[in-house]
Amino acid sequence: MDAIKTANTDFYRAFEALSIESMEKLWSHQSDVRCVHPGWSVLEGWDDVRQSWAGIFETGRQAGTYMELNVTDVQIWPGKEIAAIFCTENILSFRDGEQVSSVVLATNVFRLENGRWLMVQHHGSPVLTRPGREE
Amino acid sequence: MDAIKTANTDFYRAFEALSIESMEKLWSHQSDVRCVHPGWSVLEGWDDVRQSWAGIFETGRQAGTYMELNVTDVQIWPGKEIAAIFCTENILSFRDGEQVSSVVLATNVFRLENGRWLMVQHHGSPVLTRPGREE
Repeated sequence: MDAIKTANTDFYRAFEALSIESMEKLWSHQSDVRCVHPGWSVLEGWDDVRQSWAGIFETGRQAGTYMELNVTDVQIWPGKEIAAIFCTENILSFRDGEQVSSVVLATNVFRLENGRWLMVQHHGSPVLTRPGREE
Repeated sequence: MDAIKTANTDFYRAFEALSIESMEKLWSHQSDVRCVHPGWSVLEGWDDVRQSWAGIFETGRQAGTYMELNVTDVQIWPGKEIAAIFCTENILSFRDGEQVSSVVLATNVFRLENGRWLMVQHHGSPVLTRPGREE
């Protein structure tokens, strides 16, 4: 359980740091990996997934973005070789002196490969309405 | 693998049939289940998840909706007790003689409980842009 939690935390630290090198280390490089950025279509296979992160990070760096990413509502379904995690990403971005906050809901899937929990899927989605129990 | 695929298929047949009875049978009823309908915030625990499906199905029935749900791009990460599935939901709805087609990306998580693969999470999200490799 701790190792899975750590893998998830590592993902968000890499995201926050806009570090493609860290992303490369924590993702599986197999063809069955999938990634859905909020509102995007699905990306299939490590090459396309890597390219998307590289592009997002490059754009962020060029714009001088500083980002704080705080993860809440963490729910882990731990297995022996597959683990899934749901969490809410609370994102605070600073760019050109402006502060933007956004919320993304994410399901992350990890697989144990050679003793290491590697990401095989990231599915992020935007919150458009909030028809929760209070409404 | 076949049992996991079947659990996923059963979910979409229940969805298509707007059947809360079938949904009740295929979901885990534990407090750690989560459900994100496209654009909604997360629902936590079986009671809220059940209520959301009941409401969606009731609205659909009242409007006389007929729905065809075709699942593509299925990717399964099978474990011994936890399994995750990514898929694209191609939805065709007929209501008042009008046909509406929509695409939802979904990650579904299943857990083996007493020998049966039960759904513990459904995360559906809308496709807003398509910045895929062709663009």
